[in-house]
Amino acid sequence: MSVTLYDLAGADPALRFSPYCWRTKMALAHKGLAIETVPWRFTEKDRIAFSGQGRVPVIVDGDRVVFDSWTIAEYLEDTYPDRPSLFGGPVGRAHARFINGWADAGLHPGIARMVVRDIFDVLAPQDQAYFRASREAALGATLEAVEGREARLEAWRALLAPVRLVLRAHAFLGGEGPSYADHILFGTLQWPRSVSAFALLAPDDPVAAWFGRVGALYGGLGGTARTV
Amino acid sequence: MSVTLYDLAGADPALRFSPYCWRTKMALAHKGLAIETVPWRFTEKDRIAFSGQGRVPVIVDGDRVVFDSWTIAEYLEDTYPDRPSLFGGPVGRAHARFINGWADAGLHPGIARMVVRDIFDVLAPQDQAYFRASREAALGATLEAVEGREARLEAWRALLAPVRLVLRAHAFLGGEGPSYADHILFGTLQWPRSVSAFALLAPDDPVAAWFGRVGALYGGLGGTARTV
Repeated sequence: MSVTLYDLAGADPALRFSPYCWRTKMALAHKGLAIETVPWRFTEKDRIAFSGQGRVPVIVDGDRVVFDSWTIAEYLEDTYPDRPSLFGGPVGRAHARFINGWADAGLHPGIARMVVRDIFDVLAPQDQAYFRASREAALGATLEAVEGREARLEAWRALLAPVRLVLRAHAFLGGEGPSYADHILFGTLQWPRSVSAFALLAPDDPVAAWFGRVGALYGGLGGTARTV
Repeated sequence: MSVTLYDLAGADPALRFSPYCWRTKMALAHKGLAIETVPWRFTEKDRIAFSGQGRVPVIVDGDRVVFDSWTIAEYLEDTYPDRPSLFGGPVGRAHARFINGWADAGLHPGIARMVVRDIFDVLAPQDQAYFRASREAALGATLEAVEGREARLEAWRALLAPVRLVLRAHAFLGGEGPSYADHILFGTLQWPRSVSAFALLAPDDPVAAWFGRVGALYGGLGGTARTV
């Protein structure tokens, strides 16, 4: 039986761009679980009301409903302990929680500012008004007023320094093979890649080569941002 | 037999302020190894020439000489696998390497700018000229021209967001107990604490409570920045 994932989609239902849904999709594949995705839009709160809240990812695994990408990763590790580990034990899990917070607090605000206008363009029409209102309130500016990403790119790229340090020693953030830390950062970077032609990573950045390696995992699941 | 640690000291030989030496000291204590520290000054390159390089920490463990705090942590984990683990396995180790890079690349430059003048003041006279010349070259300014730390403090504190996220769930960055990730950040924060009256952490910051918990470990080893 496959696990159902409610997965944020654009106007094109095959375009899946949520960093958090990507983390969950990679974690499900890491565990070798079959995935059935359901395209979902920001304004379809009613369709996931059964989860008791209004955001994706939401997974349905038999009679279990779980939401929030970090909570889902812990659920998968605890429910499927005999399948490939996402964390490599409790210490690796605590350290991965740090990396999750680093990506969310450190990388996401800068990405959001750089691609927010591009996200608007790929959204389903019914989502665009919601997105504009909520994001403009958060940014304190119109989507069109958030500019100058070329000037901010270098400082954002510098935030990836600790990733590059790990990649000097290892192929993956998890070491010899991928861990949930890889899925965290992969989801983060898949998000701008899927909505924008603006390249956040320089082609010669070791992080770009790593991104290709992770995208090639699980039959190339993340090789494009199109639906599985 | 105890492990000898060459440990950066101030004019007062009991004052030990290197973040990297503190990481090593905590890791040695974590492994339950007896430690003998040797106070060392920046300009005493000849005294550690036997290590083949000129920086501390350097440890001497029987006939083994190891330098660089990360390399020492890996050495201790591999040499003493039956003692309490620093990493909790290979995935936790790779994730800890990320946290090491995050602290060094993300936190240290800001700390250095905020306390560089204070460090100068605690140094042994023979170290002060060396320190001023090397740091002023790196900073591109005189030590006295690096000011305005009150204005930079809030942005620096925001960098600790991922730490606070972990501490919502766990007592330590390693989870239920300390891991080398705790020793990494502890060393980073012990450094300004030991040389400056300028408080980097707000008293009500959960990171401050965590700092107290880690300082109380191993018989209160890190409770002050005075020598063991």
